[in-house]
Amino acid sequence: MSDDPREKSERFRRGRDELKAIMGEGQIARLDAAYADVAPDMVEFLVSFAFGDLYARKALKPRDRQLATIAALTALGTATPQLRSHIKAGLTAGLTREEIVEVLMQMAVYAGFPAALNGLAAAKEVFAQTAKN
Amino acid sequence: MSDDPREKSERFRRGRDELKAIMGEGQIARLDAAYADVAPDMVEFLVSFAFGDLYARKALKPRDRQLATIAALTALGTATPQLRSHIKAGLTAGLTREEIVEVLMQMAVYAGFPAALNGLAAAKEVFAQTAKN
Amino acid sequence: MSDDPREKSERFRRGRDELKAIMGEGQIARLDAAYADVAPDMVEFLVSFAFGDLYARKALKPRDRQLATIAALTALGTATPQLRSHIKAGLTAGLTREEIVEVLMQMAVYAGFPAALNGLAAAKEVFAQTAKN
Amino acid sequence: MSDDPREKSERFRRGRDELKAIMGEGQIARLDAAYADVAPDMVEFLVSFAFGDLYARKALKPRDRQLATIAALTALGTATPQLRSHIKAGLTAGLTREEIVEVLMQMAVYAGFPAALNGLAAAKEVFAQTAKN
Amino acid sequence: MSDDPREKSERFRRGRDELKAIMGEGQIARLDAAYADVAPDMVEFLVSFAFGDLYARKALKPRDRQLATIAALTALGTATPQLRSHIKAGLTAGLTREEIVEVLMQMAVYAGFPAALNGLAAAKEVFAQTAKN
Amino acid sequence: MSDDPREKSERFRRGRDELKAIMGEGQIARLDAAYADVAPDMVEFLVSFAFGDLYARKALKPRDRQLATIAALTALGTATPQLRSHIKAGLTAGLTREEIVEVLMQMAVYAGFPAALNGLAAAKEVFAQTAKN
Repeated sequence: MSDDPREKSERFRRGRDELKAIMGEGQIARLDAAYADVAPDMVEFLVSFAFGDLYARKALKPRDRQLATIAALTALGTATPQLRSHIKAGLTAGLTREEIVEVLMQMAVYAGFPAALNGLAAAKEVFAQTAKN
Repeated sequence: MSDDPREKSERFRRGRDELKAIMGEGQIARLDAAYADVAPDMVEFLVSFAFGDLYARKALKPRDRQLATIAALTALGTATPQLRSHIKAGLTAGLTREEIVEVLMQMAVYAGFPAALNGLAAAKEVFAQTAKN
Repeated sequence: MSDDPREKSERFRRGRDELKAIMGEGQIARLDAAYADVAPDMVEFLVSFAFGDLYARKALKPRDRQLATIAALTALGTATPQLRSHIKAGLTAGLTREEIVEVLMQMAVYAGFPAALNGLAAAKEVFAQTAKN
Repeated sequence: MSDDPREKSERFRRGRDELKAIMGEGQIARLDAAYADVAPDMVEFLVSFAFGDLYARKALKPRDRQLATIAALTALGTATPQLRSHIKAGLTAGLTREEIVEVLMQMAVYAGFPAALNGLAAAKEVFAQTAKN
Repeated sequence: MSDDPREKSERFRRGRDELKAIMGEGQIARLDAAYADVAPDMVEFLVSFAFGDLYARKALKPRDRQLATIAALTALGTATPQLRSHIKAGLTAGLTREEIVEVLMQMAVYAGFPAALNGLAAAKEVFAQTAKN
Repeated sequence: MSDDPREKSERFRRGRDELKAIMGEGQIARLDAAYADVAPDMVEFLVSFAFGDLYARKALKPRDRQLATIAALTALGTATPQLRSHIKAGLTAGLTREEIVEVLMQMAVYAGFPAALNGLAAAKEVFAQTAKN
């Protein structure tokens, strides 16, 4: 059906499906638009490894994966665009706004108040663009 | 009952109870042994703010708090003693070994393989000292 | 006088006064505008713990606290908005521009030249908006 | 010839020549425009130490120095303006676009995918402004 | 020949060969000894993705890959065991001790002197265990 | 008098004197013992740039420089040996134990409690080896 040659790989197809469930239909197209010209294979690596290999495993529920990722990216403080995507994905995966906010606040304990506040600012932006869940 | 003057504060008592539930009876004594002589008020701040103010809130389940903390400390890679404590606390809070390991593996995606591998090494040590749950 | 229910807490009032002295009259209103809708209790935690518990202690002079914070935020490199606020607060607390610049330069030794240069860029912005002290 | 008093120092002249070779004729003027008013001696320290002392050493080829710097700044994730400059400098020093992209992709293994993707976004911007090499 | 079921995967076999070339015959056995019981699939992910997918690509020479990794791990400062392995791998890949030391020194410019000095301490240990190349 | 050829440089001599004042007579010998064989010029760069160029400037008092460095290294959490040296140097420069402890505690606000606690553990070790000031 698809003309995307990457779909020959089972890992890629599995990752694509995971990503669709988490970040919506257009996410691979958005990743391709951003990175395919500069690094043609990078999106495939990301989709196949992060989503096809890891996220597809059943050992952790999707909402738990988002919770862990939101915590980590907030603590690191160096990946604001990705934090925004995962806050949005967290809502899709069933985390409530209250739970996401609580994780961000908790990061004040482990990574300091600036990290937590900058995480909350990212959440505020995402929430403003998202219908209340 | 207790002679600990810090217990006059409701926040401290609430934090003490949280900490006891998460890290066992002796945790405040261990923190006091480590820090009370060098920084007499630090344990009180930690217990009252981190555990009395934040962890005591109901917006997030205890196992979710540990999951978030384990993710963050693994990603940061600068807090191995605290990561060990929270892996242990995660088991107490109801996370399975498999869930904890899965979070640690997932950190390879967000903070790199060395961070994930060093987190797994910490988990291995904790698991070796802990009855299988 | 105030209708702010948080002012019932002595810790909050003490933090509010510290913050007013360091960052001027409107700082709590600015923090509320930024965070109160997304995380209603976060500003209270920040004011009560960071400023009411810690900054209010006499063991360190206000200008020394700002000097330490400016150094730390510059070295971390992940908290530019907060670094700007604390450079401004440092001026209020009695640090000279020359002292602030010297701390930022010194961070080249401990966190690398990019961290120091990005800190100097933040200082330049703040100084441009501030009457020469 | 030059009226720049810093040129009396051999280290500065050597660093200036290194910098000219790596980042083009106008780089010291750009650094002075950015930092000379706020921190008059900082550009001299940067040029003399980083470029006059270190980069001028023959133990590593210029393209290898840029490769190392690109890797480090991508992994740190806190120095985007400097990363852009060094991606550009890498092209000048003889790294191909393909080599630079490959280093950035490799950083996914050591610092996580967000660090690598943000590095690729920086490279994409630089490449768009640069004649294909 | 091998009984290792992971060897059915072409990616794993390719990664295994890369790793053997870089870190010697016993490296997968060492990784398995460290991580296979706690996280049975992690070594496979590491070998297949990092070495099978990325390192196996021809866009960058093996010695350049090690140079980039050594720079990044030194700058991060959170992965000393991995830094040691890659310093050793760098020697195998053809980097001279002088080149490795030069990269570590250069990190003083981008991540500060402590990062560079701690990297040099790691190199000193590795060099002491390694026949002079 | 001295046979050290580095002492021909005014910057090195100035740095050596600064370092002697801050870290005692034997510090350059200790640095040479640690790094001179692996990176013969690194100690000279460190002494000349960090101490000869920067610390020798009068824009900041020695105790303020140590305060800033202690704050930064605690926040970074990746340089424990250097943090210990600078806590000791801070005592020599006139900071009281109480002031150093207070800076370390304050880092909980900006870099999280684990960073602050690990800093306090370092201070405890240094204080145990140091006559009470």
